[in-house]
Amino acid sequence: MLETIAKRKDISKAEYKMEVPDLRHQLVLMQQAVRQKPFPVIVVIAGVDGAGKHETADLLSAWMDPRWLRTHAYGAQTDEELGRPEYWRFWRDLPPNGLVGIYLSAWYSRPLIDRVKHHTGDAEFQRRIHEINAFERTLTDNGALILKYWMHLDKKSQRKRLEKLSSDRLTSWEVEPKDWEHWALYDQFIEATEALIQSTETVAAPWQLIDASAVRRRSLDVARDILERCNNRLSADAQPDRGRASYDPGAAPPTLDGLVLEQSIERAEYKHELASLNARLGPLQRAARRAGISTVLVFEGWDAAGKGGAIRRITSALDARHYQVIPIAAPTDEEHAHHYLWRFWRHLPRAGRLTIFDRSWYGRVLVERVEGFCNETAWQRAFQEINEFEETLVNANNVVCKFWVHISPEEQLQRFEERKRIPYKAWKLTDEDWRNRESWDEYVGAVNDMVHYTSTARAPWTLVEGNDKYFARLKVVRTVCERLEQALGQN
Amino acid sequence: MLETIAKRKDISKAEYKMEVPDLRHQLVLMQQAVRQKPFPVIVVIAGVDGAGKHETADLLSAWMDPRWLRTHAYGAQTDEELGRPEYWRFWRDLPPNGLVGIYLSAWYSRPLIDRVKHHTGDAEFQRRIHEINAFERTLTDNGALILKYWMHLDKKSQRKRLEKLSSDRLTSWEVEPKDWEHWALYDQFIEATEALIQSTETVAAPWQLIDASAVRRRSLDVARDILERCNNRLSADAQPDRGRASYDPGAAPPTLDGLVLEQSIERAEYKHELASLNARLGPLQRAARRAGISTVLVFEGWDAAGKGGAIRRITSALDARHYQVIPIAAPTDEEHAHHYLWRFWRHLPRAGRLTIFDRSWYGRVLVERVEGFCNETAWQRAFQEINEFEETLVNANNVVCKFWVHISPEEQLQRFEERKRIPYKAWKLTDEDWRNRESWDEYVGAVNDMVHYTSTARAPWTLVEGNDKYFARLKVVRTVCERLEQALGQN
Repeated sequence: MLETIAKRKDISKAEYKMEVPDLRHQLVLMQQAVRQKPFPVIVVIAGVDGAGKHETADLLSAWMDPRWLRTHAYGAQTDEELGRPEYWRFWRDLPPNGLVGIYLSAWYSRPLIDRVKHHTGDAEFQRRIHEINAFERTLTDNGALILKYWMHLDKKSQRKRLEKLSSDRLTSWEVEPKDWEHWALYDQFIEATEALIQSTETVAAPWQLIDASAVRRRSLDVARDILERCNNRLSADAQPDRGRASYDPGAAPPTLDGLVLEQSIERAEYKHELASLNARLGPLQRAARRAGISTVLVFEGWDAAGKGGAIRRITSALDARHYQVIPIAAPTDEEHAHHYLWRFWRHLPRAGRLTIFDRSWYGRVLVERVEGFCNETAWQRAFQEINEFEETLVNANNVVCKFWVHISPEEQLQRFEERKRIPYKAWKLTDEDWRNRESWDEYVGAVNDMVHYTSTARAPWTLVEGNDKYFARLKVVRTVCERLEQALGQN
Repeated sequence: MLETIAKRKDISKAEYKMEVPDLRHQLVLMQQAVRQKPFPVIVVIAGVDGAGKHETADLLSAWMDPRWLRTHAYGAQTDEELGRPEYWRFWRDLPPNGLVGIYLSAWYSRPLIDRVKHHTGDAEFQRRIHEINAFERTLTDNGALILKYWMHLDKKSQRKRLEKLSSDRLTSWEVEPKDWEHWALYDQFIEATEALIQSTETVAAPWQLIDASAVRRRSLDVARDILERCNNRLSADAQPDRGRASYDPGAAPPTLDGLVLEQSIERAEYKHELASLNARLGPLQRAARRAGISTVLVFEGWDAAGKGGAIRRITSALDARHYQVIPIAAPTDEEHAHHYLWRFWRHLPRAGRLTIFDRSWYGRVLVERVEGFCNETAWQRAFQEINEFEETLVNANNVVCKFWVHISPEEQLQRFEERKRIPYKAWKLTDEDWRNRESWDEYVGAVNDMVHYTSTARAPWTLVEGNDKYFARLKVVRTVCERLEQALGQN
């Protein structure tokens, strides 16, 4: 595949000089149009060493408006990055809507190098390809335009390029020992690259193979292609509908109905049991910390179901240095300008830490679905996106516990009335709470679907009978203990 | 001082139960009022081990609305943190306006522990006290309300507390070996603490000393004090005027007038010289990387002065993995809700990297001053704040180069006309550019002041004669080379 890329004569300097001004003008006009749009443009520039990835990125920055352009290149991971899922660093760097981000090699670098230099097996190589595809799909499905360029040089041209760079006093520093090392592995790299490109070639995020031996032409080719594809996207009437059929209306069994809400527990027993659970949880979290196992707790539930109270029964057993509670309210504008999962990625715990989300990414399939804040295909698609996100967490050594704290509508009414009465609780009750109550049945449907589609073996939902607060809190803390023990191999 | 804190009898459980509901109500009402205000509340809870810092923070989270409250505790630094100034982690965690942030020990922890356990000398201890005061002052001067609580236990009470915790199976995990180690150093800690508290007691960020032996009373004391001080601040008509007298109008000599703008250089010479400077810069940056020396480049200058072109002549010599260009446009809402320096702290380079700011914190004393976006005391105060910020950078192993790229008004007009003419440059020219041109003289005054007040020996300004682009670019790249060589001891 790669060896068949046509080598073409480079264009002349004069021709190049004639072409560039108009191209620059068009690129900037395109950027100004993209600025107004609710999607980001993600340009991946990958390729063999010496093929001019960096030079091409530099040229694009020189030609385009730097205010709306970001370039990202990646070296060794920091310990903050190593302590989180591999893609955390890429999520962190995603451009907000309206901006163009250029990524040098980025998520294509490690799978390739590991395959060739560290002999990653087929299964692992396939897993990584799957990871790339899932990552790019969730971005494109939610609007991102992804353009990928592979800058190619044949073996002889690469050697020549490296030799030329090395021989010039002014550029010799650009050639590192690893470049020659990679050159020696050229054939293996090409084989792995072809597999990688073929498996990550999708309609939504296609590759362009660029002959990098013609220096002036390669730059024009990349810039022109970016321009053309961005303009195509801009002139497309609306975002393509990318709904997936994984959602089957009516398929979810009525899970919430099966809960026995009348379970309760005496105060004395609760106090005793809670103290002993706390004494169990503290050491477990410290063991998890030593083992580098992170914990992500998700709390969802009806208004006034007692999420906050349950959360505090967990945190009181923990060292404040090692956990974070993230209450999810309306997104900030930085968050709003990104993929809906971005705001959660930024708060993922470092290795051995714990993050508690008080409401979470499940807002996509709950409030956003019921209130119509996102369209049907978007929330239907979210089930898979969320499953893949949590799969990523589990693969990166996270224990993921998800709690739906459930109460009956009658119990909720009683709590609302109490909140109205008690001054220091009144602030908790808002008009929105009363409005949500009116959509009770719709929420029940949404919750049942959510549990049906996203309760997986590795990241299961725990439904918590919440009419009795003591019962609910103990169930929550006990579940966290059990899941940690499981992860630590203590049971 | 600390030993004279009156030990008071704890209040009864019944009394406590009577007090809490109203206190909670008041706290939440206060939070709701703070939410609307353009300042954050920063609560520092420090004190001896076992004095209940964590418990107090927990209680405050239980009582207050968790959506508008953040708690931060600090363990060992990550490598991302170690590679930046010590206060980077605290800047990162500052609450936005309208929120309350609780900080456990935080910036008071290391100065104290280093003093007692690692025998920091007087000079270093004083330097750190100065650092704390400068940090807190810049926050309070820009509106933050800082409240600091020292939770005190006498030596006997501390021993008792630690023994009690250790003897109970359910709480024994809370006591770490280092707690006993610190207890043995009790007297030294108290001595250092008194010095620290005395030197960081300011009108704007005062300490409250709390007797922590009375468990219920201590919580009420802290909560009530927070409430009272926040309410006082809320009822104060306006933000106190905290202008400083360091600005002396008319003191700055007319620096810009002294520039000889007619200097120029031939194209061939430029090409040759630039290539050799690049060949010098690349290896220098790699040496700086190995030495852990970071570089911060600041570009300011007239519209169309050629900042972008100069920046690209630097980046083309560098590895994309090791630098970042940060164009400063209007702040995002997250940035707007913080101290004006916060948005720059978040982009500081890690050890050995380079960050280029295309416009910078000097906006405070340039555009914000001239356009009246901040009041006079704010920009006058900024000179000191900026000097302290850059001092922090230099102390943390950063080379700080600041460029003012200067052109004459005639040259600017010519470039504006050219931009109008050439389609691919037209986007660079905005109405604002024409408006700024009308305030030329005011800007000259502001630039002269800026250079006068913020050109320091360790972070000097370089004024760049920009009428000839070649001359300007060479001067910029050469300056960066020279400053790096200086930092590396190569000259």
